Amino acid sequence: MSSGTLLQRFEAGDIRALARIISFVENQEDGYRELLSRLYRKPRHAVRIGLTGPPGAGKSTLVDSASRKMLKAGNDVCVIAVDPSSPFTGGALLGDRVRFKEETQGGRHFFRSMASRGSSGGLSGATDNVALVLDSFGFDFVLIETVGVGQVELDIVNNCDLVAVVLVPESGDAVQTLKAGLTEIADIFVVNKADRSGADRIVTDLTSMLMLRSGQKTHPTVAKNPNIPVISTDAVHETNLDELVNYFDSLIADRKESGEFDVRRRRQVLRKVSRLLQHRFMTETLQRSSSKAEIDRAVDSILAGKDDPYSTADRLFSETNLAPQSC
Amino acid sequence: MSSGTLLQRFEAGDIRALARIISFVENQEDGYRELLSRLYRKPRHAVRIGLTGPPGAGKSTLVDSASRKMLKAGNDVCVIAVDPSSPFTGGALLGDRVRFKEETQGGRHFFRSMASRGSSGGLSGATDNVALVLDSFGFDFVLIETVGVGQVELDIVNNCDLVAVVLVPESGDAVQTLKAGLTEIADIFVVNKADRSGADRIVTDLTSMLMLRSGQKTHPTVAKNPNIPVISTDAVHETNLDELVNYFDSLIADRKESGEFDVRRRRQVLRKVSRLLQHRFMTETLQRSSSKAEIDRAVDSILAGKDDPYSTADRLFSETNLAPQSC
Repeated sequence: MSSGTLLQRFEAGDIRALARIISFVENQEDGYRELLSRLYRKPRHAVRIGLTGPPGAGKSTLVDSASRKMLKAGNDVCVIAVDPSSPFTGGALLGDRVRFKEETQGGRHFFRSMASRGSSGGLSGATDNVALVLDSFGFDFVLIETVGVGQVELDIVNNCDLVAVVLVPESGDAVQTLKAGLTEIADIFVVNKADRSGADRIVTDLTSMLMLRSGQKTHPTVAKNPNIPVISTDAVHETNLDELVNYFDSLIADRKESGEFDVRRRRQVLRKVSRLLQHRFMTETLQRSSSKAEIDRAVDSILAGKDDPYSTADRLFSETNLAPQSC
Repeated sequence: MSSGTLLQRFEAGDIRALARIISFVENQEDGYRELLSRLYRKPRHAVRIGLTGPPGAGKSTLVDSASRKMLKAGNDVCVIAVDPSSPFTGGALLGDRVRFKEETQGGRHFFRSMASRGSSGGLSGATDNVALVLDSFGFDFVLIETVGVGQVELDIVNNCDLVAVVLVPESGDAVQTLKAGLTEIADIFVVNKADRSGADRIVTDLTSMLMLRSGQKTHPTVAKNPNIPVISTDAVHETNLDELVNYFDSLIADRKESGEFDVRRRRQVLRKVSRLLQHRFMTETLQRSSSKAEIDRAVDSILAGKDDPYSTADRLFSETNLAPQSC
């Protein structure tokens, strides 16, 4: 990349330069880390909202409708649609996405779909980096939509400032939802397709379940607002979309005031640094041909019942010269 | 723990000693690593079968019915029921589990429920360790049942020799299932509650979807049997349970013959060693007070736009004396 001119065009607001830089970062082309390092030092202000939930909850339509509302209010809004299943299907499943049919009014709009580039950590990291690029470009909102509720999705929404869990009347009763652990990641519950029967019941069930839960002893590592709102929407008919967007705004405002917003951002950065550090360590360790051969032999020994993973890990670690600082 | 006598009782087949050792390992009491190191060196032969799927698919009943069949055939069968949401609710959700009502015939039986002890990696690791204990005790089958389809569940079933994904007619159409990434972890699909309407349709949809998929270019890191069987069951009325158990047996036999069984076990051990090594590295790095203070300062700088995670991770790594072997 002739990074000088491209970055200049990016900074001047050229949307094609933006698209090019996103691909550059997503494909981890030579110099992408240096570029990201620069972007981390630029002023940014975007709020990241993650939308997740079981398949078939109508998340795409909801994201489209909500972002239209945000655009009309004059915001610059971009959408990242993440589909972890794509590497196996060539990404075709997002091809049927209903795209904006009307002309965009108000702010700038950008849509990008992302598919896995290999490991799950990879997709989460790549999404985080693309969100940073979009933030640096000057967008006000980055909406991140994930399909399904798997490992990758949880990693991704952990990098968001606000997480909406989207359910439908068919999503099963509230107890089942609780079992799936969704209440641990949700800042707001959206019961979409509210025109279908059962919508009222799931809203009531969820609300009372959440009230019950807020009185219970929670896990010490989970510092969550006990008052998670539940809102019903009908994205196709645009019912309650304004209310949803208002909820986003007021939740973010509350978080910023209480300091929770900064606490989360801090945690995200700490996690990112830890992951990069971990990745660097593993790469260096596994790249040494002596370790590689030794690990192979160790795995054979463990499978043969002559060794175990704990002793192996300790032995490999002691060989890194990290444990005893002998010089 | 007076590990000598307890281990002797364990080795003699004392079920109370087994329960005690499981708690010992699960709670990571002093000496648990040494105990695990010993167990890794003992002869073992259990097959691990993971059962996962969306909430409400009747997995508990299916696991109970299937294990009864296996017990009747003379096998020693144990069940680990994992409920990651439990730390937040005190584990009460598993309390309503329908337990075996009839007397156990045939082989030995053991049931254990597990809840998260903190981090998600922790629960997956703990489940793996408990499965090792049960395997060392002499069980023929370790059935691992997970509630929901989240990060923890995927980590857990990755440690199984065979994974059954349990769906119900209400689970949505096959395209949605594909989107949720379930086909990537499934060795067999079980459509449970097959007495309900829509069961035939989801079986047909899944089957044709899987056939279509087997003809597609798959991700290079995914070496999967393209012929994933789809079977419909009705666990409550015990319909097709014998067929399901037979499928388990023949899939395992096929895997062992093709070598795929060993390939997976190898991968699991390698992953375990990597995780332990990573964990050791992070613990040592973060425990040094100099790094701790430095990381805190770095996070502040990153949030203030004066530094970035990439430079920070590189700097922290270079300070571990790992990169340049100067002595």
